[in-house]
Amino acid sequence: MSIEIYWGSGSTFAWRVLLALEVKQLPYASRLLEFSKKEHKTPAFLQMNPRGKVPTLKDGDFVVYESIAILQYLDRKYPQIPLFGTTAEESGAINQDVCEVLSYMEEPVSRITRPLFNGELAGKEQRVREAAEVVHQEFGRYDVRLAHSPWLRGEHISASDIVLYPFLPTLLRAAAKPAAEKLNMAYMPLSRHYPHLTRWMTAVEALPGYARTYPPHWRQ
Amino acid sequence: MSIEIYWGSGSTFAWRVLLALEVKQLPYASRLLEFSKKEHKTPAFLQMNPRGKVPTLKDGDFVVYESIAILQYLDRKYPQIPLFGTTAEESGAINQDVCEVLSYMEEPVSRITRPLFNGELAGKEQRVREAAEVVHQEFGRYDVRLAHSPWLRGEHISASDIVLYPFLPTLLRAAAKPAAEKLNMAYMPLSRHYPHLTRWMTAVEALPGYARTYPPHWRQ
Repeated sequence: MSIEIYWGSGSTFAWRVLLALEVKQLPYASRLLEFSKKEHKTPAFLQMNPRGKVPTLKDGDFVVYESIAILQYLDRKYPQIPLFGTTAEESGAINQDVCEVLSYMEEPVSRITRPLFNGELAGKEQRVREAAEVVHQEFGRYDVRLAHSPWLRGEHISASDIVLYPFLPTLLRAAAKPAAEKLNMAYMPLSRHYPHLTRWMTAVEALPGYARTYPPHWRQ
Repeated sequence: MSIEIYWGSGSTFAWRVLLALEVKQLPYASRLLEFSKKEHKTPAFLQMNPRGKVPTLKDGDFVVYESIAILQYLDRKYPQIPLFGTTAEESGAINQDVCEVLSYMEEPVSRITRPLFNGELAGKEQRVREAAEVVHQEFGRYDVRLAHSPWLRGEHISASDIVLYPFLPTLLRAAAKPAAEKLNMAYMPLSRHYPHLTRWMTAVEALPGYARTYPPHWRQ
């Protein structure tokens, strides 16, 4: 086994894969690419992934990209510590969660984080506020579920948790930008609105190996 | 086994599930909901799917929604005639295709079809044209792949084909609207731009049971 994971600091999609590798306790070689140096657009990288995106995973001769596809691959190749359950019903329910994150969270998260991280908020304030309201509704749903179980699908961490998690610290970071102050983001403050989701976030952050998944440039 | 599929005429997402059921040769009860009568927002339906969306699948007591999650469930529950391959590598590659359809096709397709189907094109012409250009690029990629194999992943139909297919007739239908005439959609005419993709589309439409998946209101 020789897994290499190509990722970029702060990519929520890459973060999912790093978390999955840690949770599954799979040894891997970290290949951190510098976006500012266009390391994800070199001919060698484009040969692996023609779209020039992270995460991209190489396992021996096999290459796969798109974060959810990588999780599916890892879980089928290395079934120990399953991320998608052990029955068809569990797999269906976890995949449903994963799809709901893609369908209902990804776009509003991107609407919030892009203008705030890129300093392009001017004229987009209302769109950002509306996206924060959508996030607020979704977080409310998760909070209700997490009142009854430690993880989104019961007693064990699963792809449901791993796919959602990176959006939370990313949304907190966006809301902490000085430009966000006047927006009164509907999902803030997190711990008051969603006590169970906050407890769950803390549990993810207590996982062994979590520190290795944390975006290096956020520490600076 | 008693599978019920709740769907709506013309929903590309529901269409995927109907195709999957036909390809896997699973018997099912068709529950066609009338959106105009809000049959997807009744208390009974919302109890199965709180978001009030189709497709929703019921298999005995088990309920699952989100089209990709339903496909994953069906493939794990009824592994005969696999849709996600038989190895981890095949599953990874097919899931990668599925994720790429979600990441790169869904939004442009919706940008084209919504204004054209809802008669709300005014002021959105440029956005629709740009989305048609994105679709054109994506279709070009598929056409290259289909020059070498009958289906997107080799000799057998898979989730890669099933997840992509419903967008094609839907985009053709959008482009055939009188309002679309002046837009010169970049992906038209399909058969001249993408001969292999067109041949593949014809092959899907020749599948046994295809007629049962076709949107009833399109026949009127």
